Amino acid sequence: MSKPLILVVNDDGISAPGIKALVEAVKDLGEIVVVAPDSPQSGMGHAITINKPLRLTEVKYFGDIKAYQCSGTPVDCVKLAVDRVLHRHPDLCVSGINHGSNSSINVIYSGTMSAAVEASLEGIPSVGFSLCDYKHEADFSATSFYVKFVVNQMLEIGIPKHTLLNVNVPKLPLNEIMGVKICRQAIAKWEEKYMERNDPMGRPYYWLMGEFVNHDHGQDTDEWALANGYVSIVPVQYDLTSHHTIPYINENWKFTGVDKGNESIPNVSREEFNL
Amino acid sequence: MSKPLILVVNDDGISAPGIKALVEAVKDLGEIVVVAPDSPQSGMGHAITINKPLRLTEVKYFGDIKAYQCSGTPVDCVKLAVDRVLHRHPDLCVSGINHGSNSSINVIYSGTMSAAVEASLEGIPSVGFSLCDYKHEADFSATSFYVKFVVNQMLEIGIPKHTLLNVNVPKLPLNEIMGVKICRQAIAKWEEKYMERNDPMGRPYYWLMGEFVNHDHGQDTDEWALANGYVSIVPVQYDLTSHHTIPYINENWKFTGVDKGNESIPNVSREEFNL
Repeated sequence: MSKPLILVVNDDGISAPGIKALVEAVKDLGEIVVVAPDSPQSGMGHAITINKPLRLTEVKYFGDIKAYQCSGTPVDCVKLAVDRVLHRHPDLCVSGINHGSNSSINVIYSGTMSAAVEASLEGIPSVGFSLCDYKHEADFSATSFYVKFVVNQMLEIGIPKHTLLNVNVPKLPLNEIMGVKICRQAIAKWEEKYMERNDPMGRPYYWLMGEFVNHDHGQDTDEWALANGYVSIVPVQYDLTSHHTIPYINENWKFTGVDKGNESIPNVSREEFNL
Repeated sequence: MSKPLILVVNDDGISAPGIKALVEAVKDLGEIVVVAPDSPQSGMGHAITINKPLRLTEVKYFGDIKAYQCSGTPVDCVKLAVDRVLHRHPDLCVSGINHGSNSSINVIYSGTMSAAVEASLEGIPSVGFSLCDYKHEADFSATSFYVKFVVNQMLEIGIPKHTLLNVNVPKLPLNEIMGVKICRQAIAKWEEKYMERNDPMGRPYYWLMGEFVNHDHGQDTDEWALANGYVSIVPVQYDLTSHHTIPYINENWKFTGVDKGNESIPNVSREEFNL
Protein backbone atom coordinates (compact mmCIF):
# COMPACT_ATOMS: atom_id res chain seq x y z
CA MET A 1 0.00 0.00 0.00
CA SER A 2 1.34 3.44 -0.86
CA LYS A 3 2.06 5.94 1.90
CA PRO A 4 -0.50 8.72 2.43
CA LEU A 5 0.24 11.86 0.42
CA ILE A 6 0.49 14.92 2.71
CA LEU A 7 0.52 18.48 1.35
CA VAL A 8 2.31 20.99 3.62
CA VAL A 9 1.56 24.72 3.33
CA ASN A 10 1.88 27.80 5.56
CA ASP A 11 1.54 31.58 5.59
CA ASP A 12 4.80 32.67 7.23
CA GLY A 13 6.69 31.67 4.07
CA ILE A 14 8.77 28.69 3.03
CA SER A 15 11.82 29.78 5.03
CA ALA A 16 9.96 30.11 8.37
CA PRO A 17 11.08 27.78 11.20
CA GLY A 18 7.43 26.76 11.76
CA ILE A 19 7.07 24.98 8.41
CA LYS A 20 10.43 23.28 8.92
CA ALA A 21 9.17 21.93 12.27
CA LEU A 22 5.93 20.79 10.61
CA VAL A 23 7.78 18.93 7.83
CA GLU A 24 10.00 17.25 10.43
CA ALA A 25 6.95 16.22 12.48
CA VAL A 26 5.05 14.60 9.58
CA LYS A 27 7.82 13.33 7.30
CA ASP A 28 7.67 9.74 8.61
CA LEU A 29 3.86 9.62 8.40
CA GLY A 30 3.52 9.87 4.61
CA GLU A 31 4.90 11.12 1.30
CA ILE A 32 5.40 14.87 1.79
CA VAL A 33 5.03 17.69 -0.78
CA VAL A 34 5.55 21.30 0.32
CA VAL A 35 4.07 24.30 -1.56
CA ALA A 36 4.51 27.52 0.42
CA PRO A 37 4.69 31.27 -0.21
CA ASP A 38 8.08 32.73 -1.12
CA SER A 39 7.51 35.57 1.40
CA PRO A 40 5.53 36.12 4.62
CA GLN A 41 1.76 36.26 4.03
CA SER A 42 0.35 36.74 7.53
CA GLY A 43 -3.07 38.38 7.67
CA MET A 44 -3.84 37.55 4.04
CA GLY A 45 -7.03 35.73 5.01
CA HIS A 46 -8.65 33.98 2.06
CA ALA A 47 -7.09 36.31 -0.52
CA ILE A 48 -6.47 34.89 -4.00
CA THR A 49 -4.41 36.34 -6.82
CA ILE A 50 -6.54 37.04 -9.88
CA ASN A 51 -5.08 40.13 -11.55
CA LYS A 52 -1.52 38.94 -12.04
CA PRO A 53 0.33 35.72 -12.87
CA LEU A 54 1.95 33.45 -10.28
CA ARG A 55 5.40 31.91 -10.16
CA LEU A 56 6.15 28.43 -8.88
CA THR A 57 9.76 27.36 -8.28
CA GLU A 58 11.10 24.03 -7.06
CA VAL A 59 13.41 24.47 -4.06
CA LYS A 60 15.62 22.22 -1.94
CA TYR A 61 14.94 23.56 1.55
CA PHE A 62 13.90 20.25 3.11
CA GLY A 63 16.54 17.72 1.96
CA ASP A 64 14.99 15.09 -0.30
CA ILE A 65 11.42 16.31 0.22
CA LYS A 66 9.68 17.76 -2.85
CA ALA A 67 9.14 21.46 -2.21
CA TYR A 68 8.00 24.51 -4.19
CA GLN A 69 7.83 28.19 -3.38
CA CYS A 70 5.00 30.24 -4.85
CA SER A 71 4.74 34.00 -5.40
CA GLY A 72 1.10 34.10 -4.27
CA THR A 73 -0.99 33.86 -1.14
CA PRO A 74 -1.45 30.76 1.06
CA VAL A 75 -4.73 29.99 -0.75
CA ASP A 76 -2.97 30.32 -4.13
CA CYS A 77 -0.42 27.74 -2.89
CA VAL A 78 -3.16 25.18 -2.24
CA LYS A 79 -4.87 25.84 -5.58
CA LEU A 80 -1.60 25.59 -7.52
CA ALA A 81 -0.57 22.47 -5.60
CA VAL A 82 -3.82 20.73 -6.52
CA ASP A 83 -3.82 21.77 -10.18
CA ARG A 84 -0.11 21.80 -11.05
CA VAL A 85 2.09 19.98 -8.50
CA LEU A 86 0.43 16.91 -7.02
CA HIS A 87 0.11 13.80 -9.13
CA ARG A 88 -2.85 12.52 -7.10
CA HIS A 89 -5.47 13.74 -4.62
CA PRO A 90 -3.69 14.22 -1.29
CA ASP A 91 -4.84 12.33 1.79
CA LEU A 92 -4.20 15.27 4.10
CA CYS A 93 -3.21 18.93 4.04
CA VAL A 94 -1.37 20.38 7.05
CA SER A 95 -0.83 24.15 7.32
CA GLY A 96 1.63 25.92 9.63
CA ILE A 97 3.09 25.68 12.14
CA ASN A 98 2.03 29.31 12.46
CA HIS A 99 4.21 31.63 14.52
CA GLY A 100 1.45 33.00 16.78
CA SER A 101 -2.08 32.07 17.82
CA ASN A 102 -4.92 31.54 15.35
CA SER A 103 -7.52 30.94 18.02
CA SER A 104 -11.00 32.47 18.08
CA ILE A 105 -11.77 35.07 15.41
CA ASN A 106 -8.18 34.93 14.09
CA VAL A 107 -9.39 32.00 11.99
CA ILE A 108 -10.81 34.50 9.47
CA TYR A 109 -7.73 36.76 9.21
CA SER A 110 -5.23 33.92 9.14
CA GLY A 111 -3.51 32.81 5.95
CA THR A 112 -2.59 29.55 7.71
CA MET A 113 -6.24 28.74 8.38
CA SER A 114 -7.44 30.02 4.99
CA ALA A 115 -5.04 27.63 3.26
CA ALA A 116 -6.49 24.80 5.37
CA VAL A 117 -10.05 25.94 4.50
CA GLU A 118 -9.17 25.97 0.79
CA ALA A 119 -7.82 22.42 1.00
CA SER A 120 -11.03 21.31 2.71
CA LEU A 121 -13.03 22.99 -0.08
CA GLU A 122 -11.01 20.86 -2.51
CA GLY A 123 -12.13 17.77 -0.59
CA ILE A 124 -8.79 17.29 1.17
CA PRO A 125 -8.91 16.48 4.92
CA SER A 126 -7.16 19.43 6.44
CA VAL A 127 -5.66 20.89 9.65
CA GLY A 128 -4.05 24.22 10.54
CA PHE A 129 -1.49 24.26 13.39
CA SER A 130 -0.41 27.31 15.37
CA LEU A 131 1.87 27.87 18.34
CA CYS A 132 0.95 30.74 20.67
CA ASP A 133 4.42 32.27 20.39
CA TYR A 134 5.19 34.93 17.78
CA LYS A 135 8.96 34.65 18.12
CA HIS A 136 11.02 33.52 15.12
CA GLU A 137 13.07 31.30 17.47
CA ALA A 138 9.98 29.77 19.17
CA ASP A 139 10.30 26.21 20.51
CA PHE A 140 8.15 23.96 18.32
CA SER A 141 8.94 20.67 20.08
CA ALA A 142 5.72 20.38 22.14
CA THR A 143 3.68 21.44 19.11
CA SER A 144 5.39 18.74 17.05
CA PHE A 145 4.22 16.13 19.55
CA TYR A 146 0.60 17.22 19.12
CA VAL A 147 1.00 17.55 15.33
CA LYS A 148 1.85 13.83 15.25
CA PHE A 149 -1.12 12.99 17.48
CA VAL A 150 -3.56 14.97 15.31
CA VAL A 151 -2.14 13.72 11.99
CA ASN A 152 -2.33 10.12 13.18
CA GLN A 153 -5.98 10.57 14.22
CA MET A 154 -6.83 12.37 10.95
CA LEU A 155 -5.28 9.59 8.84
CA GLU A 156 -6.78 6.76 10.92
CA ILE A 157 -10.19 8.13 11.94
CA GLY A 158 -10.73 11.58 10.40
CA ILE A 159 -13.58 14.07 10.77
CA PRO A 160 -16.88 14.64 8.91
CA LYS A 161 -16.93 15.97 5.33
CA HIS A 162 -16.90 19.77 4.81
CA THR A 163 -15.03 20.33 8.09
CA LEU A 164 -11.39 20.92 9.04
CA LEU A 165 -9.44 21.57 12.25
CA ASN A 166 -7.90 24.66 13.84
CA VAL A 167 -5.27 23.45 16.33
CA ASN A 168 -3.57 25.90 18.69
CA VAL A 169 -0.84 24.95 21.15
CA PRO A 170 -0.06 27.01 24.26
CA LYS A 171 3.47 28.35 24.78
CA LEU A 172 4.47 25.72 27.31
CA PRO A 173 6.98 22.88 27.51
CA LEU A 174 5.44 19.50 26.66
CA ASN A 175 5.43 18.29 30.26
CA GLU A 176 3.35 21.29 31.35
CA ILE A 177 0.63 20.93 28.68
CA MET A 178 -2.54 19.59 30.32
CA GLY A 179 -3.85 17.67 27.30
CA VAL A 180 -6.27 18.30 24.40
CA LYS A 181 -9.70 20.00 24.43
CA ILE A 182 -12.14 19.91 21.50
CA CYS A 183 -13.60 23.43 21.61
CA ARG A 184 -15.81 26.01 20.01
CA GLN A 185 -14.39 29.29 18.68
CA ALA A 186 -14.52 31.94 21.43
CA ILE A 187 -16.54 35.09 20.69
CA ALA A 188 -13.57 37.43 20.93
CA LYS A 189 -12.35 40.29 18.76
CA TRP A 190 -9.59 42.74 18.02
CA GLU A 191 -10.22 46.25 19.30
CA GLU A 192 -8.43 48.25 16.67
CA LYS A 193 -6.31 51.29 17.09
CA TYR A 194 -4.29 52.87 14.32
CA MET A 195 -1.00 54.60 15.05
CA GLU A 196 -1.00 57.90 13.14
CA ARG A 197 2.32 59.50 12.12
CA ASN A 198 3.57 61.81 9.39
CA ASP A 199 5.92 60.72 6.62
CA PRO A 200 9.05 62.77 5.63
CA MET A 201 6.77 64.86 3.31
CA GLY A 202 4.47 65.67 6.24
CA ARG A 203 1.60 63.53 5.01
CA PRO A 204 -0.18 61.28 7.52
CA TYR A 205 -0.01 57.50 7.46
CA TYR A 206 -1.77 54.92 9.60
CA TRP A 207 -0.43 51.65 10.97
CA LEU A 208 -2.62 48.90 12.37
CA MET A 209 -2.29 48.14 16.06
CA GLY A 210 -4.92 46.43 18.16
CA GLU A 211 -5.72 44.59 21.31
CA PHE A 212 -7.29 41.15 21.39
CA VAL A 213 -10.25 41.15 23.78
CA ASN A 214 -12.17 38.04 24.86
CA HIS A 215 -15.64 38.81 26.19
CA ASP A 216 -16.63 35.12 26.12
CA HIS A 217 -16.65 33.49 29.57
CA GLY A 218 -17.55 29.99 28.35
CA GLN A 219 -15.29 27.15 29.48
CA ASP A 220 -15.86 25.29 26.20
CA THR A 221 -13.90 27.79 24.08
CA ASP A 222 -10.44 27.68 22.52
CA GLU A 223 -9.43 30.74 24.54
CA TRP A 224 -10.34 29.00 27.79
CA ALA A 225 -8.45 25.84 26.80
CA LEU A 226 -5.28 27.76 25.86
CA ALA A 227 -5.41 29.94 29.00
CA ASN A 228 -5.66 26.76 31.07
CA GLY A 229 -2.72 24.97 29.47
CA TYR A 230 -4.59 22.78 26.97
CA VAL A 231 -4.09 22.31 23.24
CA SER A 232 -7.31 23.63 21.62
CA ILE A 233 -8.84 21.87 18.63
CA VAL A 234 -11.75 23.71 16.99
CA PRO A 235 -13.60 21.91 14.18
CA VAL A 236 -14.21 24.53 11.46
CA GLN A 237 -16.78 24.72 8.67
CA TYR A 238 -17.07 26.96 5.63
CA ASP A 239 -20.85 26.98 5.43
CA LEU A 240 -21.21 30.48 6.86
CA THR A 241 -25.03 30.38 6.79
CA SER A 242 -26.59 31.48 10.05
CA HIS A 243 -29.37 28.91 9.76
CA HIS A 244 -31.38 30.11 12.78
CA THR A 245 -31.59 33.59 11.23
CA ILE A 246 -33.53 32.30 8.19
CA PRO A 247 -36.83 31.80 10.09
CA TYR A 248 -36.17 35.01 12.08
CA ILE A 249 -36.15 37.08 8.88
CA ASN A 250 -39.07 35.24 7.29
CA GLU A 251 -41.18 35.81 10.41
CA ASN A 252 -40.20 39.41 11.22
CA TRP A 253 -39.45 41.30 8.01
CA LYS A 254 -42.22 42.88 5.95
CA PHE A 255 -42.06 41.58 2.39
CA THR A 256 -45.09 43.45 1.09
CA GLY A 257 -44.51 44.86 -2.35
CA VAL A 258 -41.26 43.18 -3.32
CA ASP A 259 -42.70 40.35 -5.40
CA LYS A 260 -42.92 40.29 -9.19
CA GLY A 261 -45.49 42.68 -10.56
CA ASN A 262 -45.86 44.34 -7.18
CA GLU A 263 -42.57 46.14 -6.56
CA SER A 264 -43.09 49.13 -4.31
CA ILE A 265 -41.43 49.90 -1.05
CA PRO A 266 -41.60 52.98 1.18
CA ASN A 267 -39.87 55.96 -0.45
CA VAL A 268 -39.27 54.05 -3.65
CA SER A 269 -41.55 54.33 -6.62
CA ARG A 270 -41.30 51.98 -9.58
CA GLU A 271 -41.22 55.06 -11.82
CA GLU A 272 -37.78 55.90 -10.44
CA PHE A 273 -36.52 52.87 -12.35
CA ASN A 274 -38.31 53.72 -15.59
CA LEU A 275 -40.43 50.58 -15.58
CA MET B 1 -33.90 62.55 16.17
CA SER B 2 -30.69 62.31 14.16
CA LYS B 3 -30.63 60.37 10.92
CA PRO B 4 -29.05 56.89 11.00
CA LEU B 5 -25.33 56.88 10.20
CA ILE B 6 -24.56 54.56 7.27
CA LEU B 7 -21.00 53.50 6.36
CA VAL B 8 -20.56 52.59 2.68
CA VAL B 9 -17.63 50.38 1.60
CA ASN B 10 -16.80 48.11 -1.34
CA ASP B 11 -14.03 46.05 -2.92
CA ASP B 12 -14.12 47.19 -6.54
CA GLY B 13 -12.65 50.55 -5.51
CA ILE B 14 -14.07 54.00 -4.88
CA SER B 15 -14.43 54.82 -8.60
CA ALA B 16 -16.51 51.72 -9.45
CA PRO B 17 -20.06 52.33 -10.74
CA GLY B 18 -21.39 49.83 -8.16
CA ILE B 19 -20.50 51.98 -5.14
CA LYS B 20 -21.92 55.06 -6.86
CA ALA B 21 -25.21 53.20 -7.34
CA LEU B 22 -25.14 52.09 -3.68
CA VAL B 23 -24.57 55.66 -2.44
CA GLU B 24 -27.44 56.88 -4.64
CA ALA B 25 -29.74 54.15 -3.30
CA VAL B 26 -29.12 54.87 0.39
CA LYS B 27 -28.40 58.61 0.47
CA ASP B 28 -31.95 59.58 1.49
CA LEU B 29 -32.10 56.90 4.19
CA GLY B 30 -29.43 58.34 6.51
CA GLU B 31 -26.20 60.29 6.92
CA ILE B 32 -23.71 58.65 4.56
CA VAL B 33 -19.93 58.23 4.97
CA VAL B 34 -17.94 56.39 2.29
CA VAL B 35 -14.55 54.73 2.96
CA ALA B 36 -13.45 52.61 0.01
CA PRO B 37 -10.22 51.24 -1.51
CA ASP B 38 -8.35 53.51 -3.93
CA SER B 39 -7.94 50.56 -6.35
CA PRO B 40 -9.80 47.32 -7.15
CA GLN B 41 -9.49 44.70 -4.37
CA SER B 42 -11.55 41.79 -5.68
CA GLY B 43 -10.61 38.41 -4.26
CA MET B 44 -8.84 39.93 -1.26
CA GLY B 45 -11.02 37.96 1.16
CA HIS B 46 -10.46 38.97 4.77
CA ALA B 47 -6.91 40.23 4.13
CA ILE B 48 -5.63 43.01 6.41
CA THR B 49 -2.55 45.18 5.97
CA ILE B 50 -0.12 44.69 8.86
CA ASN B 51 3.36 45.09 7.41
CA LYS B 52 2.99 48.54 5.87
CA PRO B 53 1.27 51.83 6.62
CA LEU B 54 -2.05 52.90 5.11
CA ARG B 55 -3.09 56.16 3.48
CA LEU B 56 -6.49 57.75 3.86
CA THR B 57 -7.47 60.67 1.63
CA GLU B 58 -10.69 62.68 1.60
CA VAL B 59 -12.24 62.79 -1.89
CA LYS B 60 -15.19 64.52 -3.55
CA TYR B 61 -16.56 61.72 -5.72
CA PHE B 62 -20.10 61.81 -4.37
CA GLY B 63 -21.10 65.49 -4.27
CA ASP B 64 -21.61 66.65 -0.70
CA ILE B 65 -21.26 63.18 0.80
CA LYS B 66 -18.23 62.64 3.05
CA ALA B 67 -15.94 60.17 1.29
CA TYR B 68 -12.41 58.80 1.76
CA GLN B 69 -10.22 56.55 -0.31
CA CYS B 70 -7.88 54.15 1.46
CA SER B 71 -4.74 52.43 0.17
CA GLY B 72 -5.61 49.14 1.90
CA THR B 73 -7.99 46.22 1.59
CA PRO B 74 -11.79 46.33 2.08
CA VAL B 75 -11.34 45.10 5.67
CA ASP B 76 -8.75 47.83 6.30
CA CYS B 77 -11.34 50.38 5.10
CA VAL B 78 -13.83 49.26 7.75
CA LYS B 79 -11.22 49.24 10.52
CA LEU B 80 -9.93 52.70 9.58
CA ALA B 81 -13.47 54.06 9.25
CA VAL B 82 -14.34 52.89 12.75
CA ASP B 83 -11.12 54.12 14.39
CA ARG B 84 -10.31 57.27 12.40
CA VAL B 85 -13.23 58.58 10.32
CA LEU B 86 -16.59 58.10 12.02
CA HIS B 87 -17.51 60.35 14.91
CA ARG B 88 -19.99 57.79 16.30
CA HIS B 89 -20.88 54.11 16.03
CA PRO B 90 -22.65 53.65 12.68
CA ASP B 91 -26.17 52.24 12.56
CA LEU B 92 -25.49 50.24 9.42
CA CYS B 93 -22.67 49.25 7.08
CA VAL B 94 -23.47 48.52 3.43
CA SER B 95 -20.84 47.00 1.15
CA GLY B 96 -20.93 46.91 -2.65
CA ILE B 97 -22.68 46.94 -4.98
CA ASN B 98 -20.26 44.28 -6.16
CA HIS B 99 -19.80 43.83 -9.91
CA GLY B 100 -20.43 40.07 -10.01
CA SER B 101 -22.01 37.39 -7.84
CA ASN B 102 -20.90 36.69 -4.28
CA SER B 103 -23.28 33.79 -3.80
CA SER B 104 -22.40 30.44 -2.27
CA ILE B 105 -18.71 29.87 -1.42
CA ASN B 106 -17.73 33.23 -2.97
CA VAL B 107 -18.58 34.71 0.43
CA ILE B 108 -15.14 33.64 1.67
CA TYR B 109 -13.11 34.99 -1.30
CA SER B 110 -15.03 38.23 -1.59
CA GLY B 111 -13.64 41.52 -0.34
CA THR B 112 -17.17 42.93 -0.46
CA MET B 113 -18.44 40.32 1.96
CA SER B 114 -15.29 40.38 4.12
CA ALA B 115 -15.77 44.12 4.65
CA ALA B 116 -19.37 43.40 5.73
CA VAL B 117 -18.16 40.62 8.05
CA GLU B 118 -15.60 42.99 9.61
CA ALA B 119 -18.30 45.60 10.26
CA SER B 120 -20.45 42.92 11.93
CA LEU B 121 -17.45 41.95 14.09
CA GLU B 122 -17.31 45.60 15.17
CA GLY B 123 -20.94 45.33 16.25
CA ILE B 124 -22.29 47.23 13.23
CA PRO B 125 -25.40 45.76 11.51
CA SER B 126 -24.12 44.95 8.07
CA VAL B 127 -25.08 43.86 4.53
CA GLY B 128 -23.11 43.07 1.38
CA PHE B 129 -24.82 43.62 -1.99
CA SER B 130 -23.82 42.05 -5.29
CA LEU B 131 -25.25 42.09 -8.80
CA CYS B 132 -24.73 38.94 -10.89
CA ASP B 133 -23.21 40.94 -13.74
CA TYR B 134 -19.45 41.47 -14.00
CA LYS B 135 -19.69 44.24 -16.57
CA HIS B 136 -18.40 47.73 -15.67
CA GLU B 137 -21.51 49.18 -17.36
CA ALA B 138 -23.94 46.84 -15.57
CA ASP B 139 -27.47 48.14 -14.89
CA PHE B 140 -27.79 48.64 -11.13
CA SER B 141 -31.37 49.95 -11.14
CA ALA B 142 -33.14 46.73 -10.05
CA THR B 143 -30.43 46.13 -7.43
CA SER B 144 -31.00 49.66 -6.11
CA PHE B 145 -34.67 48.85 -5.57
CA TYR B 146 -33.78 45.83 -3.40
CA VAL B 147 -30.99 47.76 -1.62
CA LYS B 148 -33.66 50.19 -0.41
CA PHE B 149 -35.93 47.33 0.67
CA VAL B 150 -33.14 45.59 2.63
CA VAL B 151 -31.78 48.80 4.19
CA ASN B 152 -35.27 49.82 5.32
CA GLN B 153 -35.82 46.39 6.93
CA MET B 154 -32.36 46.45 8.54
CA LEU B 155 -32.94 49.91 10.04
CA GLU B 156 -36.51 49.16 11.17
CA ILE B 157 -36.36 45.49 12.21
CA GLY B 158 -32.80 44.18 11.85
CA ILE B 159 -31.35 40.70 12.34
CA PRO B 160 -29.88 38.83 15.35
CA LYS B 161 -26.49 39.83 16.83
CA HIS B 162 -23.33 38.30 15.34
CA THR B 163 -24.98 37.89 11.94
CA LEU B 164 -24.99 39.88 8.68
CA LEU B 165 -26.52 39.51 5.21
CA ASN B 166 -25.19 38.44 1.82
CA VAL B 167 -27.61 39.82 -0.80
CA ASN B 168 -27.26 38.81 -4.46
CA VAL B 169 -29.44 40.14 -7.26
CA PRO B 170 -29.95 38.29 -10.55
CA LYS B 171 -29.08 40.03 -13.82
CA LEU B 172 -32.69 40.84 -14.73
CA PRO B 173 -34.79 43.96 -15.19
CA LEU B 174 -36.83 44.82 -12.08
CA ASN B 175 -40.13 43.71 -13.60
CA GLU B 176 -38.72 40.21 -14.26
CA ILE B 177 -37.38 39.62 -10.72
CA MET B 178 -39.64 37.13 -8.94
CA GLY B 179 -39.12 38.48 -5.41
CA VAL B 180 -36.85 37.73 -2.41
CA LYS B 181 -35.80 34.36 -0.94
CA ILE B 182 -34.05 33.96 2.43
CA CYS B 183 -31.59 31.15 1.68
CA ARG B 184 -28.74 29.02 2.86
CA GLN B 185 -25.34 29.14 1.15
CA ALA B 186 -25.21 26.49 -1.61
CA ILE B 187 -22.50 23.84 -1.31
CA ALA B 188 -20.73 24.82 -4.53
CA LYS B 189 -17.10 25.38 -5.42
CA TRP B 190 -14.62 26.63 -7.97
CA GLU B 191 -12.91 23.90 -9.94
CA GLU B 192 -9.56 25.51 -10.56
CA LYS B 193 -7.45 25.42 -13.63
CA TYR B 194 -4.32 27.48 -14.11
CA MET B 195 -3.35 28.75 -17.53
CA GLU B 196 0.38 28.06 -17.99
CA ARG B 197 2.43 30.25 -20.35
CA ASN B 198 6.02 31.37 -20.69
CA ASP B 199 7.19 34.94 -20.12
CA PRO B 200 9.55 36.74 -22.59
CA MET B 201 12.51 35.16 -20.74
CA GLY B 202 11.06 31.69 -21.30
CA ARG B 203 10.12 31.15 -17.64
CA PRO B 204 6.67 29.71 -16.87
CA TYR B 205 3.92 31.66 -15.16
CA TYR B 206 0.47 30.58 -14.01
CA TRP B 207 -2.78 32.50 -14.15
CA LEU B 208 -5.89 31.52 -12.22
CA MET B 209 -8.90 30.40 -14.24
CA GLY B 210 -11.71 28.28 -12.93
CA GLU B 211 -15.22 27.09 -13.34
CA PHE B 212 -17.93 27.52 -10.71
CA VAL B 213 -19.67 24.20 -10.14
CA ASN B 214 -22.81 23.74 -8.03
CA HIS B 215 -23.31 20.16 -6.84
CA ASP B 216 -26.07 21.22 -4.42
CA HIS B 217 -29.58 20.37 -5.65
CA GLY B 218 -31.43 21.93 -2.70
CA GLN B 219 -34.17 24.43 -3.52
CA ASP B 220 -33.41 26.44 -0.36
CA THR B 221 -30.02 27.69 -1.61
CA ASP B 222 -28.88 31.05 -2.95
CA GLU B 223 -27.87 29.40 -6.24
CA TRP B 224 -31.39 28.02 -6.71
CA ALA B 225 -32.97 31.40 -5.90
CA LEU B 226 -30.75 33.29 -8.37
CA ALA B 227 -31.22 30.69 -11.11
CA ASN B 228 -34.99 31.05 -10.66
CA GLY B 229 -35.09 34.84 -10.84
CA TYR B 230 -35.15 35.66 -7.12
CA VAL B 231 -32.98 37.99 -5.07
CA SER B 232 -31.10 35.74 -2.61
CA ILE B 233 -30.50 36.84 0.98
CA VAL B 234 -28.21 34.56 2.99
CA PRO B 235 -27.77 35.35 6.70
CA VAL B 236 -24.07 34.92 7.45
CA GLN B 237 -22.20 34.23 10.71
CA TYR B 238 -18.52 34.38 11.61
CA ASP B 239 -18.60 31.64 14.22
CA LEU B 240 -16.96 29.03 11.99
CA THR B 241 -17.21 26.28 14.63
CA SER B 242 -18.64 23.04 13.25
CA HIS B 243 -20.53 22.35 16.47
CA HIS B 244 -21.74 18.87 15.50
CA THR B 245 -18.14 17.80 14.91
CA ILE B 246 -17.19 18.37 18.58
CA PRO B 247 -19.01 15.28 19.90
CA TYR B 248 -17.90 13.31 16.81
CA ILE B 249 -14.24 13.84 17.67
CA ASN B 250 -14.72 13.29 21.40
CA GLU B 251 -16.47 9.97 20.73
CA ASN B 252 -14.29 8.62 17.92
CA TRP B 253 -10.70 9.79 18.38
CA LYS B 254 -8.31 7.93 20.70
CA PHE B 255 -6.90 10.35 23.26
CA THR B 256 -4.81 7.82 25.15
CA GLY B 257 -1.41 9.19 26.08
CA VAL B 258 -1.86 12.86 25.28
CA ASP B 259 -2.68 14.12 28.78
CA LYS B 260 -0.21 15.76 31.12
CA GLY B 261 2.39 13.37 32.50
CA ASN B 262 1.34 10.71 30.03
CA GLU B 263 2.48 11.97 26.63
CA SER B 264 3.11 9.05 24.29
CA ILE B 265 1.58 8.38 20.92
CA PRO B 266 2.39 5.78 18.27
CA ASN B 267 5.75 6.46 16.58
CA VAL B 268 6.52 9.31 18.95
CA SER B 269 8.63 8.86 22.03
CA ARG B 270 8.86 11.52 24.70
CA GLU B 271 12.66 11.16 24.50
CA GLU B 272 12.55 12.71 21.02
CA PHE B 273 11.64 15.95 22.73
CA ASN B 274 14.34 15.72 25.41
CA LEU B 275 11.90 15.57 28.31
